Amino acid sequence: MSEIKAITEKIKKFRDERDWKQFHNHKDMALSLMLEAAEVLEHFQWKSVQEVDKHAQECKDEIADELADVAMYLFELSDNLDINLPKAIAQKMEKNSRKYPVEKAKGKHTKYNKL
Amino acid sequence: MSEIKAITEKIKKFRDERDWKQFHNHKDMALSLMLEAAEVLEHFQWKSVQEVDKHAQECKDEIADELADVAMYLFELSDNLDINLPKAIAQKMEKNSRKYPVEKAKGKHTKYNKL
Amino acid sequence: MSEIKAITEKIKKFRDERDWKQFHNHKDMALSLMLEAAEVLEHFQWKSVQEVDKHAQECKDEIADELADVAMYLFELSDNLDINLPKAIAQKMEKNSRKYPVEKAKGKHTKYNKL
Amino acid sequence: MSEIKAITEKIKKFRDERDWKQFHNHKDMALSLMLEAAEVLEHFQWKSVQEVDKHAQECKDEIADELADVAMYLFELSDNLDINLPKAIAQKMEKNSRKYPVEKAKGKHTKYNKL
Repeated sequence: MSEIKAITEKIKKFRDERDWKQFHNHKDMALSLMLEAAEVLEHFQWKSVQEVDKHAQECKDEIADELADVAMYLFELSDNLDINLPKAIAQKMEKNSRKYPVEKAKGKHTKYNKL
Repeated sequence: MSEIKAITEKIKKFRDERDWKQFHNHKDMALSLMLEAAEVLEHFQWKSVQEVDKHAQECKDEIADELADVAMYLFELSDNLDINLPKAIAQKMEKNSRKYPVEKAKGKHTKYNKL
Repeated sequence: MSEIKAITEKIKKFRDERDWKQFHNHKDMALSLMLEAAEVLEHFQWKSVQEVDKHAQECKDEIADELADVAMYLFELSDNLDINLPKAIAQKMEKNSRKYPVEKAKGKHTKYNKL
Repeated sequence: MSEIKAITEKIKKFRDERDWKQFHNHKDMALSLMLEAAEVLEHFQWKSVQEVDKHAQECKDEIADELADVAMYLFELSDNLDINLPKAIAQKMEKNSRKYPVEKAKGKHTKYNKL
């Protein structure tokens, strides 16, 4: 079994032992994914580049917890939607390489539709 | 190499070929993670439970693309922060099992501090 | 002076007494606006329609605090950007009435580009 | 009638002419408030302080539209929840002045619980 699949199975076991599937409709899962991403971002609010780097080292464990929360909602939601996440990533990277060809995109953060 | 590590290496190769590391500071990465999560959620805005399910099937490929975007920022940001994501998930699940013991949390969506 | 302008002046006085303008760049202001909107949304996470209504009544003061936070960032950011918010709202409503004509949009939550 | 109240009445008239109240439950309203805040933030993604300022001037009308969207959801949601927004702001500013006394908070972006 792939690593992501194995982690997803553990997440679903945790969920099902608590009978939480009833709450995990796609809308609330997507909403929760976003709220957890907000908690990651909150770590860097108001901070300069230097303060961000310092904070990232000092609060590594707390940030790791927030990233784990994002990952758990992401893996379970993908599974609930019957989406193969590694395959979806491979396909999106393929698209991105066409939208952002190296010669055009190098050194720029311009969106593809304005390149 | 683990699956997540292998995907992360591909993401970093894509980034470095375009010389984008200069833009990928932790704050903008966290901000982008959140904006991609918003694009997932937008799929379900205003929709009833029935409409959500129908839309999830009809627009599976578009949603897969958005989840892939979330995953790519998540994997790269974790790597940039020197955080081992599978290990972070295992540790968070361990914490969660203490915060949400089966007998207390079963069938409830109450937050741990109000259980 | 208009009501929104008067509130905005109080917010700026509060900010300037604390010498916080230096942190209130547009990016961090927009980021904070979003984080406060997340705190409003968190009140409704995992809740059914019935639970949402019950919670909205029971926690009215807490939700009012979160909405006030959104308002304060919104009013100050608009002012910092030299945007007249009441005028911007009037112009957007004018646009929306063209994008969503009553006869086409009535009773539907379809986005204008799919109407 | 106060300015915010008058704007809110126009928003509700627009909504009711389209029979949209049925979709405007608190959860979807809060979700939409957040998605609109995301669209404001997206304007500043990947940009340096200098680029942010330049973009804010060049795309003032587009940003004004996004801020108007945030304002419209904020004003209507507050009204739907029977929350008087100007009063809520006044009360929150009163709380904030206790949480962030000038002598302690001046020139710092530290959160009140760590001051």
